[in-house]
Amino acid sequence: MSAARDNRSMTRVTVWNEFVHEQENDAVAEVYPDGIHATIAAALEERGFETQTATLQEPEHGLTEDVLDETDVLTWWGHAAHDQVEDDIVERVHSQVLDGMGLLVLHSGHFSKIFRELMGTTCGLKWREAAERERLWVVEPGHPIASGIDDCIELEEAEMYGERFDVPQPDALVFNSWFEGGEVFRSGCCYRRGSGRIFYFRPGHETYPIYHDEEIQHVLANAVEWAAPADDPGTSSSGNSEPREDIDTSDDRTVH
Amino acid sequence: MSAARDNRSMTRVTVWNEFVHEQENDAVAEVYPDGIHATIAAALEERGFETQTATLQEPEHGLTEDVLDETDVLTWWGHAAHDQVEDDIVERVHSQVLDGMGLLVLHSGHFSKIFRELMGTTCGLKWREAAERERLWVVEPGHPIASGIDDCIELEEAEMYGERFDVPQPDALVFNSWFEGGEVFRSGCCYRRGSGRIFYFRPGHETYPIYHDEEIQHVLANAVEWAAPADDPGTSSSGNSEPREDIDTSDDRTVH
Amino acid sequence: MSAARDNRSMTRVTVWNEFVHEQENDAVAEVYPDGIHATIAAALEERGFETQTATLQEPEHGLTEDVLDETDVLTWWGHAAHDQVEDDIVERVHSQVLDGMGLLVLHSGHFSKIFRELMGTTCGLKWREAAERERLWVVEPGHPIASGIDDCIELEEAEMYGERFDVPQPDALVFNSWFEGGEVFRSGCCYRRGSGRIFYFRPGHETYPIYHDEEIQHVLANAVEWAAPADDPGTSSSGNSEPREDIDTSDDRTVH
Amino acid sequence: MSAARDNRSMTRVTVWNEFVHEQENDAVAEVYPDGIHATIAAALEERGFETQTATLQEPEHGLTEDVLDETDVLTWWGHAAHDQVEDDIVERVHSQVLDGMGLLVLHSGHFSKIFRELMGTTCGLKWREAAERERLWVVEPGHPIASGIDDCIELEEAEMYGERFDVPQPDALVFNSWFEGGEVFRSGCCYRRGSGRIFYFRPGHETYPIYHDEEIQHVLANAVEWAAPADDPGTSSSGNSEPREDIDTSDDRTVH
Repeated sequence: MSAARDNRSMTRVTVWNEFVHEQENDAVAEVYPDGIHATIAAALEERGFETQTATLQEPEHGLTEDVLDETDVLTWWGHAAHDQVEDDIVERVHSQVLDGMGLLVLHSGHFSKIFRELMGTTCGLKWREAAERERLWVVEPGHPIASGIDDCIELEEAEMYGERFDVPQPDALVFNSWFEGGEVFRSGCCYRRGSGRIFYFRPGHETYPIYHDEEIQHVLANAVEWAAPADDPGTSSSGNSEPREDIDTSDDRTVH
Repeated sequence: MSAARDNRSMTRVTVWNEFVHEQENDAVAEVYPDGIHATIAAALEERGFETQTATLQEPEHGLTEDVLDETDVLTWWGHAAHDQVEDDIVERVHSQVLDGMGLLVLHSGHFSKIFRELMGTTCGLKWREAAERERLWVVEPGHPIASGIDDCIELEEAEMYGERFDVPQPDALVFNSWFEGGEVFRSGCCYRRGSGRIFYFRPGHETYPIYHDEEIQHVLANAVEWAAPADDPGTSSSGNSEPREDIDTSDDRTVH
Repeated sequence: MSAARDNRSMTRVTVWNEFVHEQENDAVAEVYPDGIHATIAAALEERGFETQTATLQEPEHGLTEDVLDETDVLTWWGHAAHDQVEDDIVERVHSQVLDGMGLLVLHSGHFSKIFRELMGTTCGLKWREAAERERLWVVEPGHPIASGIDDCIELEEAEMYGERFDVPQPDALVFNSWFEGGEVFRSGCCYRRGSGRIFYFRPGHETYPIYHDEEIQHVLANAVEWAAPADDPGTSSSGNSEPREDIDTSDDRTVH
Repeated sequence: MSAARDNRSMTRVTVWNEFVHEQENDAVAEVYPDGIHATIAAALEERGFETQTATLQEPEHGLTEDVLDETDVLTWWGHAAHDQVEDDIVERVHSQVLDGMGLLVLHSGHFSKIFRELMGTTCGLKWREAAERERLWVVEPGHPIASGIDDCIELEEAEMYGERFDVPQPDALVFNSWFEGGEVFRSGCCYRRGSGRIFYFRPGHETYPIYHDEEIQHVLANAVEWAAPADDPGTSSSGNSEPREDIDTSDDRTVH
């Protein structure tokens, strides 16, 4: 019997943040004095995960091969500096996700290079900053990411994101958001790409204290647990393959 | 931190079998002397689950309210006696699945009342008994049900099931089978219905020793783990609801 | 070249209605004096389809084998009398859908026998009659059912339906609704079952003039066009099958 | 009534080919003397579509803005020269697909830049050239792309492609292939990305006369018809949006 990932202490999370607003804007610094990453990392640490952080400003944005090799789930927050993320680091993360690393893309991370590459679409949406009410309704109560959540999560002040959210249809839609100003948004979207799992989670903003919310932290923890790879994932080879059956493989017409 | 379902010993499995062929046919009794359920239950017990069995011949087919209330995942094998399963027991199982109980439907269980009710389709397929070779190729190596499985599982002697398998498109397709006689089959299909998870797994036959195969047993264990409900599932109410926003609810035109 | 279904005049629609509220309630009769079916049928006729109606009160509910054999797409409206629909007629419709007939399930039809049978779930939801505002946001602008619709459809007075809508994840989600009172709802859901296509469309109520709305009528017409079967659908046989490859089919262990 | 795309003559197809093997290899030139594109284009022309061709060697690979603006569906064949396709042309095609242009990706086009960008995955697979038998089983007989196809299409000589095919789960799986040497492959995969539809179709090879096969040509025609955009697609705006409801939009904390 595999005791695979029997407890959260075995799941290693790296919380990535571009960490720009917090250093440039007082209103943001007041909400997240040590950066959004510090708040998220503390919330996950408290819920039992082995957690570290990384930011844009570090060498290789803190996402060296060694760091990623030791990461089960990466969370991604970015907004103002998507373009400053080096392409080769994006490729490195992309490759790790396809190999099984979990990825949580948070809020304005919808426009990050890594998310757009994984989705293949523009990932565009409507938005508005009006400190309006958001309700995240549970669409799949049996999904592990909705574990412990009642009918809906209510946030008093949120940025609005509205449909159409230009992403592929999610493999599972866990949350569906209502906004005071009249819009809706698929706010919790699960994807499988390669051997990795991706969860896009809408809430979270630099000027609202979303990541201090207990329910939001709870969902983040659920999502990390869901996105973590198996200890012993299935494998699949590719490339030129010998037949499994006894067939005639002579064919001199090949141009390969 | 929730220690939710941290180990398999907390997951309670009920292995159901119609238990007809084994009592009527020598060739089957030789392969499964104590019934297919005994073999499956032993394999799951050995892999750490709390396991019990139930059969068609028991009062209420062994699936009393009490038994189902204490069941996290139910596995279902039937073939010759689908019609003898009482409709009210089917409704009871159906209701439990929608409330979150996991369900593994095995092989000829594709034509069981419970599977057809959950799918809404005929669940028809092509079949042939010719002791032919089957290969179950892994389509989603990152899926927990494929954990520990290499490129494919090879079975030397299997009954053929061929497309078109008349089921809704699965939420995830984990295995895709090849048969010596020329057919293919979606042989590992995941569904979410209500709050419950369903896995249809094709292999398994009364005259071939499929359930004695280590890899098949391994997949069954993976599937039980995947299908088990969260300790604290999301909840969702339904019915007539008060508004969350302050709106005028007077409307004297209602005919409800 | 196949001229398959080159124009709407070749698509035969049967509009079914339980036709109870209109005959019992003045407020409803005022909005739909000839019944909801008459309004929907006129809208589809006007948009080029060959259209007829059928109601609960007719022999076999107007859904004889002959009628269904000549129907490409059936639309279904019911609310107060779901239980009065005969089970054998439901089976007849179910069978036709699996054989390729399109089905549009409208509004309170979510609780009809036919829809629940096709979905395999409770199809429950939250509801409220408060003549509140609804906005149906387009989630898939490229889907044929959204053809000609801008960002959203706005309805000034609607009954609220709220998540969780207990249905399987749709194959495609075309519309996502916002309600004034604070809820959201997946209001345009596409399914494929057997060889048939099903579209659930939320708007429509007996006391609000929803089916007189031009945009709603436009979506209904789009949906009929989408749900209509091909003139020459793919076929698939099932049952005991001879092998396509030359294999040894002798196996005396079979118990079939 | 919209006469939208009432016949195939209104659908404009551009057949793209890298056109390398045919000019360099005698075995290929014998099967496709004027290039694979010429064979495909003739087959589609014959089935009623307005068809033109474009190849790698032309300026801008024949895919100028003007050409793409006048294209409803683009078909893509490439193998040896994926890397020679200019990145800005790939971006141009990508953008057109997201805006609604249909795309058929054929055979070895699975490794094209455009397909990998749209999928977000490696698109890897197993392969073998042994002139072996392939059977494409119909998984969705009611899907328009399977129209007119019986249980399966049989090809006497094909290149093998085997799972795992590293792509996102398709929105619909239409064909599932069996290979003589023992592998299976999801050989007809539908995707929706942005407002566009994509169909990956496996068969087709430079040294086997696959594109001369009547059934393959028939499927290509079905797929073109399916992938063509509506005349009047739904639209969706994005970006900063005014609220639809009357809410207080003052919020001086924004850092946008």
